[in-house]
Amino acid sequence: MGGNIVVIGGVALGPKAACRAKRLDPEARVVMVDRGARISYGGCGIPYFVSGDVSDVDELQSTSFHMLRDVAFFRDVKGVEARPRTEALSIDREAKTVRVRSLDTGVEKDLPYDRLVLATGSSPRILPIPGAELPGVRAVADLEAAMAIREGLSSGRVGSAVVVGAGFIGLEMAVALADMWGIETTVVEYAPTVLPTVLSPVLAAMAQRHMEEKGVAFRLGAQAARIEGEGKAERVVLRTAVGEETIAADLVIMAVGVAPNSELARAAGLDVSPRGGVVVDETLRTSDPDIFAGGDCAEIKNLVTGQDFFLPLGSLANRQGRVIGDNLCGGDSRFPGAAGAWCVKLFELSASGVGLTLDAARRAGLDAVAVQVSQFDRAHFYPDKDFMFLELVAERGTRRVLGVQGVCSLGDALVGRIGAVSALMPHRPTVTDLSLLELPYSPPFSSAMDIVNVLGNVGDNILSGRNESIDALAFAELFAERESGKAFFLDCREQPNAAPYLARYFGEWHNIPQGQLAGRLDEVPRDRTVVLVCNSGARSYEAFVTLAKAGFDRVVNVAGGMATVAKAGLAPEV
Amino acid sequence: MGGNIVVIGGVALGPKAACRAKRLDPEARVVMVDRGARISYGGCGIPYFVSGDVSDVDELQSTSFHMLRDVAFFRDVKGVEARPRTEALSIDREAKTVRVRSLDTGVEKDLPYDRLVLATGSSPRILPIPGAELPGVRAVADLEAAMAIREGLSSGRVGSAVVVGAGFIGLEMAVALADMWGIETTVVEYAPTVLPTVLSPVLAAMAQRHMEEKGVAFRLGAQAARIEGEGKAERVVLRTAVGEETIAADLVIMAVGVAPNSELARAAGLDVSPRGGVVVDETLRTSDPDIFAGGDCAEIKNLVTGQDFFLPLGSLANRQGRVIGDNLCGGDSRFPGAAGAWCVKLFELSASGVGLTLDAARRAGLDAVAVQVSQFDRAHFYPDKDFMFLELVAERGTRRVLGVQGVCSLGDALVGRIGAVSALMPHRPTVTDLSLLELPYSPPFSSAMDIVNVLGNVGDNILSGRNESIDALAFAELFAERESGKAFFLDCREQPNAAPYLARYFGEWHNIPQGQLAGRLDEVPRDRTVVLVCNSGARSYEAFVTLAKAGFDRVVNVAGGMATVAKAGLAPEV
Repeated sequence: MGGNIVVIGGVALGPKAACRAKRLDPEARVVMVDRGARISYGGCGIPYFVSGDVSDVDELQSTSFHMLRDVAFFRDVKGVEARPRTEALSIDREAKTVRVRSLDTGVEKDLPYDRLVLATGSSPRILPIPGAELPGVRAVADLEAAMAIREGLSSGRVGSAVVVGAGFIGLEMAVALADMWGIETTVVEYAPTVLPTVLSPVLAAMAQRHMEEKGVAFRLGAQAARIEGEGKAERVVLRTAVGEETIAADLVIMAVGVAPNSELARAAGLDVSPRGGVVVDETLRTSDPDIFAGGDCAEIKNLVTGQDFFLPLGSLANRQGRVIGDNLCGGDSRFPGAAGAWCVKLFELSASGVGLTLDAARRAGLDAVAVQVSQFDRAHFYPDKDFMFLELVAERGTRRVLGVQGVCSLGDALVGRIGAVSALMPHRPTVTDLSLLELPYSPPFSSAMDIVNVLGNVGDNILSGRNESIDALAFAELFAERESGKAFFLDCREQPNAAPYLARYFGEWHNIPQGQLAGRLDEVPRDRTVVLVCNSGARSYEAFVTLAKAGFDRVVNVAGGMATVAKAGLAPEV
Repeated sequence: MGGNIVVIGGVALGPKAACRAKRLDPEARVVMVDRGARISYGGCGIPYFVSGDVSDVDELQSTSFHMLRDVAFFRDVKGVEARPRTEALSIDREAKTVRVRSLDTGVEKDLPYDRLVLATGSSPRILPIPGAELPGVRAVADLEAAMAIREGLSSGRVGSAVVVGAGFIGLEMAVALADMWGIETTVVEYAPTVLPTVLSPVLAAMAQRHMEEKGVAFRLGAQAARIEGEGKAERVVLRTAVGEETIAADLVIMAVGVAPNSELARAAGLDVSPRGGVVVDETLRTSDPDIFAGGDCAEIKNLVTGQDFFLPLGSLANRQGRVIGDNLCGGDSRFPGAAGAWCVKLFELSASGVGLTLDAARRAGLDAVAVQVSQFDRAHFYPDKDFMFLELVAERGTRRVLGVQGVCSLGDALVGRIGAVSALMPHRPTVTDLSLLELPYSPPFSSAMDIVNVLGNVGDNILSGRNESIDALAFAELFAERESGKAFFLDCREQPNAAPYLARYFGEWHNIPQGQLAGRLDEVPRDRTVVLVCNSGARSYEAFVTLAKAGFDRVVNVAGGMATVAKAGLAPEV
């Protein structure tokens, strides 16, 4: 085809689209402009550079074989003309030109295009609070910001830090600060849980507790009201339910999310959603068929809700970049959308998920139910193993899987399970599809009945009314009110497991091993809610079946068992 | 519904079906018989018991919370009447009874059934060779056999062992013997590669090489002709292409596959396939609608070929058991088939796959092509990482994914990728589905462009004719014949990477860094096959595009690059 291709933005999607287009159509002239001095870097690696895990910032900008992806690389290896420190000012869709200005010389010029790509990314949101402009207040914006943060850390002048926001970047930055630099770190979050948009309260409690054990402090349900200090940030004043609190902080990281950079698109008259993302179709064309957009600046279809959403992830940008590269050259590649798969490593615990949380599903108007399961991530007889905790969100009626989230110390094992569910999501799986899901099996890697299969089975039992469960938080609430006598706590494990609770909570904690239950029904009250617990939720389900058969109709099973309750830090003290 | 349910076989599928049925229909009387003394155990754990990783055989028969799954457990906890050491002799489908005999008392009786489950499993094949009956020759049949093998090992009388068969069990047993007991172990296999039915030759070479580094010897393309010794096994005589060879062996493990136990079914007039598996429909009913079968004794539909096949895996048995449990109680659950996902841990290297190898695809009459890729399993800048090697088998024309196999030291990371592909297999994915596959992304777990996406991209390029590749074995063959001058070996890496080869193979190895290639085309011959190599196959693909554009039509790219060649032990010596 040939002609001029201009790409605005040179971090993730931009380079991918540019290089793919050039490979497919060597006759095309491909120009890629970016405001920053550095292009084509792994922005997701910034927390690992800040921590020192990645020693040199150049590594984030290199290929896997240590070639720096700079202007010369793009010219010699890729045949792409990259222009860093070049700002795109406006798009003239009639003339088909982009007005750009060199940030070094100030010179402006018009770049002609036949096809244009908007890969303008996103910018960190900055809370508009007093003191946000003080030195020492930083957002994780780009490599330049990352280098400034790390310089501050290595200078030794940072003793304490506040991270505002408990999303991915906030938590990853908190890990980087506390783990490698030993800095007294507090995470402030307006929501009542960490990772509030992607993780359920029970799993979030597990993640938070682990980070607390590693020395990170949390202020949840708290708002950063202002930042104070003499000429630089020295403390953050929080507004909480009980008043104000002041926390010392030489460094304040703002990690309250990002907003799509869609000003250029809006000014050019392209469709932009009310949330600020550029609107594209499945071919990733904007409302102007010669202009493509993708990555953080655009919205995509959520495969679970069917609605457009904003998913700023480097992996998404890379996959979309290839689709745009194809279509720049006359192809007809499609990007059908995403279910929102994610993962994060928090010290020695990892969390991962795909799709909707229960809360998100209900906000989307879906009649959803959630259930937790816990199981070893390997065959239970295999020596080196740990518990994995998964939560399923499913729709009543359709039995559709809306989301799965999890927490485990063996992160790869967890991420693998979520990846398998994610692969299914475009096919609108039901809980039965999880029950039947075929995963590779061998004792060093999984159980013969994999935890994903168990999750489907438990979901099936719940949706079919054969099981009724409460989560660990509801259990803890009921247990806190145990003196009301509303609930009868029945431990279905063998006596040695139950013994510490029986001793500590005499008369309030009861034990009938599940195998004996059918013969001891007269010990179980019919006028109170019977709360069944075992270790994982499996035996208490058997007990549930026994009681249901015997006509007990006020019985609930603690989902995921005491393993889940304990991991979330909600177990009764013994 | 109530009535009598009889289950023949009490290892994996049998207990699962029995317990599920009893839970769904507490009125039913469920009787489960098994020839063995132990029931409901994890047979796949036998190599880990033999190695000593699992210290007590009871662990293989326990729940994850240390309850032994014995007769009392099934009676008290599950409401199922388990009868070990009870052999099923025949089925009278008219009278609806099963004739059983107690192996302890010899007493025979008829068990009436309304619905019957055949969960008779499989038996190890024993090669009919002289000496196969000698003491010291063992198959990995059941827990009793496992205990006998371990007793022999712990007695200290075993110094050397031969494992006949390089399938999963053979290799796992070889690891157990060599790793934990330090026994001189030789694996004998008739096929020319290890794991011949599931792994491609290049990946198999990687697995074999790793095991050799750990001290296991291999005789591939060799046949165990006879076992000799004075009153017990002392040596194995092999027949190879070049004659006979004798290997000392105090212990001989026969691991040449298993055969379905379908004699009862056949004698009862049920449909049995020519391969010996009981024939069932999607509800897992045999040709008699009151009789179900599943697990190792039955065949299932291969979701890739559409043909029935035999997949003896404990995980499959467990999933099928639940379906049978449903249908025993009037349900209408379906088991659509399997794609054949598997994984195995071999010392510090793991292998995993799903679907067909290139060889299997071609034998199934499919016009298939294979391509290898290599990439770090985490972001390349993340400190703790290793190379992952994947192979894609795809069908020309339809572009359908027929299989993916891989090898990596980080087994969970590999198994996770294969699990995601496996989840897609029922939906008949194309290479484009792999390109677009949404996997959780974060630098500690993956690259922004995950290796599975890269695999899809490379597959797309190959199928679209934009890339042409040869595998590491073909490269090694061409290199061995380099004096013929047919091939021109062109290293596209930077000079320092190429330097050792340039020095050692002066005039036979050439180097033009890929970025310089367009300007140095006159150094590349047009009358010879140009073999492009780089580290991973990515830069040599760029070079391929450059040469193709310049009209070179005899160019191939070494798939997976030198990383793959080296891992398979096929790199030129330097």
